[in-house]
Amino acid sequence: MKYEDYVHIGYKPSKSDLICEFYMEPSKGVPLKRAMGAIAAESSTGTWTELTTVKPYMKKLAATVFEMQKTKRGAYIRIAYPIELFEPGNMPNILSSVAGNIFGMKDLKYLRMEDIILPKRIATSFKGPKYGIKGVRKIFRKKTPLIGTIVKPKLGLKSKDHAKVAYEAWVGGCDIVKDDENLSSQSFNRFSQRLRTTLRYKRKAEKETGERKGYMINVTAETMEMLKRKDLVADFGNEYIMIDIITEGWGALQTLRDKSRSRVIHAHRAGHAAFTKIKYHGIAMPVICTIARTIGVDQIHVGTAVGKMIEGKKEVLENVDACKRKYYNIKPVMPVASGGLNPNHVPALHKIFGNDVIIQMGGGIHGHPKGTRAGAKAARDAIDAVMQGIPLKEYPSKELQMAIKRWG
Amino acid sequence: MKYEDYVHIGYKPSKSDLICEFYMEPSKGVPLKRAMGAIAAESSTGTWTELTTVKPYMKKLAATVFEMQKTKRGAYIRIAYPIELFEPGNMPNILSSVAGNIFGMKDLKYLRMEDIILPKRIATSFKGPKYGIKGVRKIFRKKTPLIGTIVKPKLGLKSKDHAKVAYEAWVGGCDIVKDDENLSSQSFNRFSQRLRTTLRYKRKAEKETGERKGYMINVTAETMEMLKRKDLVADFGNEYIMIDIITEGWGALQTLRDKSRSRVIHAHRAGHAAFTKIKYHGIAMPVICTIARTIGVDQIHVGTAVGKMIEGKKEVLENVDACKRKYYNIKPVMPVASGGLNPNHVPALHKIFGNDVIIQMGGGIHGHPKGTRAGAKAARDAIDAVMQGIPLKEYPSKELQMAIKRWG
Repeated sequence: MKYEDYVHIGYKPSKSDLICEFYMEPSKGVPLKRAMGAIAAESSTGTWTELTTVKPYMKKLAATVFEMQKTKRGAYIRIAYPIELFEPGNMPNILSSVAGNIFGMKDLKYLRMEDIILPKRIATSFKGPKYGIKGVRKIFRKKTPLIGTIVKPKLGLKSKDHAKVAYEAWVGGCDIVKDDENLSSQSFNRFSQRLRTTLRYKRKAEKETGERKGYMINVTAETMEMLKRKDLVADFGNEYIMIDIITEGWGALQTLRDKSRSRVIHAHRAGHAAFTKIKYHGIAMPVICTIARTIGVDQIHVGTAVGKMIEGKKEVLENVDACKRKYYNIKPVMPVASGGLNPNHVPALHKIFGNDVIIQMGGGIHGHPKGTRAGAKAARDAIDAVMQGIPLKEYPSKELQMAIKRWG
Repeated sequence: MKYEDYVHIGYKPSKSDLICEFYMEPSKGVPLKRAMGAIAAESSTGTWTELTTVKPYMKKLAATVFEMQKTKRGAYIRIAYPIELFEPGNMPNILSSVAGNIFGMKDLKYLRMEDIILPKRIATSFKGPKYGIKGVRKIFRKKTPLIGTIVKPKLGLKSKDHAKVAYEAWVGGCDIVKDDENLSSQSFNRFSQRLRTTLRYKRKAEKETGERKGYMINVTAETMEMLKRKDLVADFGNEYIMIDIITEGWGALQTLRDKSRSRVIHAHRAGHAAFTKIKYHGIAMPVICTIARTIGVDQIHVGTAVGKMIEGKKEVLENVDACKRKYYNIKPVMPVASGGLNPNHVPALHKIFGNDVIIQMGGGIHGHPKGTRAGAKAARDAIDAVMQGIPLKEYPSKELQMAIKRWG
């Protein structure tokens, strides 16, 4: 089969097909049809030349470009992949096909994977989220946005100082405290010591506030070490673990979900923007949300639209949609807004996300002029103000008013 | 500390620092110094606002921008990271710092990680390659480039047909046969069946040719399943395993190396071009080579400069340099050229790579007019011709002459 033979615009995919949407631009001098076909060929059964080793029984395995919408420089296309191409329950295998060699082909100037829809039999061969939005809500018994913080400075605090910052945040009003993405088990703050100490302060905070508090401790490491840390977290009875899904990788994330019977899994996406940022090449964030949801994380960072990170409102809403859209019996994932946020952002965030969101502020809490506890109170008060329909500036909270003055 | 405080051009890094080189462009309106500092801050201890929780003892942990070379639109910079920032033996952790959030910061228009140099104490906390170039050479007892093929079509052959294609390639002259990156354990070609059958044909080929032959079988899967497959390969006494390092991920790759005492590990890089292709953003391939070498793969795909994939000679040589440059006591990794190659490319490849390379041809062998065996002979003859300094067109091999006619 030639590349062009993989293109049949108007072909009706089977219900069991895996569907991918791509944006593509052909390289100079390469006809559009050839370039489109090259994607479907290389990601299924084809290569650059005619082979002598093809068997008649394998014809049904070819992928098909079945939709195309031309743009000025290229096209949006949809490709249908027969389900037999993939090994159920093996995400690295699936991605090696549909998000593998194709990004580096000479025939293509740019290629961006925009979306992926797994057929039911493949999607449900993974575990999916154990908790998802409803499960997370049950833990905290709240219907409003949850408020979280990241212990800051992101690296460098000793275990006890780390735990004290967490305590101040919880007592001030945070529901959740998390490690930052690059904290794992450094010499100044060993994992087991941090877990032990921070949980002691968590219990203290729960007692003093009468509220449930969450601690998302970062278990990112080589798979076996990661599992040991996960087990230690379970031994200590903590609900949450957190994992850097991109730098950890899909093979180990599957393992974490498989072996984790009852931890809530929080997914940090550090590193994603190396391939999500350029709008015409790479992999779009909704694809990452879908893969992570399929494997089974319960919460995932989806951008803020208003903080220190890229991604405007449109992109963030697309990410949220991937977390929450109808997806067989697979639970929706709780979206997390994190990165450069402070209490002033809360009304805008609530407009974008509604109630189903964890709003995380790091610097926006620990940078409060009166310190972490006041910062946490300001953040919590901002949520209360929004839920009551009161403009932030009119809300009777001196901590919130100071935060407005500092960053408003 | 403000972002700008992370910049000290002229600062002399400590020998124990981890060094990264980046290309960066600030976003519109953001001063260069602020943007450079933002990278060092976010990837070490800083954030977007002043914190109340900083402790005096952690000041020594800040990363420092110590070199800068301005370009028209931005700058090449080098950043020194104190070793204490990282957990030895934890690659995902290291990458979450130096290749994490920074790609998505609003202050930066583009950011590309160009190189990474791990200090000795971190680099040697990983296993490194067990075999490397010398070890691979020992297996095949050859000093010339090794010739390999990928069983094609890349997906769809039943186990027995797969094994027969491998057999034809070995008998024709290939040293090595490998699975393609998206073949794992599909219903038409189960892993254990393929392993069993292909190894039977490998033994037959070894007996008939009197040569050692290699079979690189793809173990890419969820970590535990991957380890099971690795064990099965060991039980069958096969030297090689192959892994898709990008879609599998670093956590699981470390596990594979840790648990693999004596398999040769072949690294396929399917998916890399999602973040390596755009020259001004993402992560450059030499970084990937260095990370994979540090963890301990023995062979890795580095591009071809002449085949169906992107990457010119300059890029390929940079990748090769990362595989072979002096790196404490860590062995050099065997570079693999693969992607759209046929026998006509051999002289050019030899000029680029020298003898230390595995030249893989898929379509360029199985697309030979007379079939796989003749294709393999043509490929092998092309190597022989180059080693003897004879132009391909003058080499007395009808298989090679047919290949020249087909693709020359």
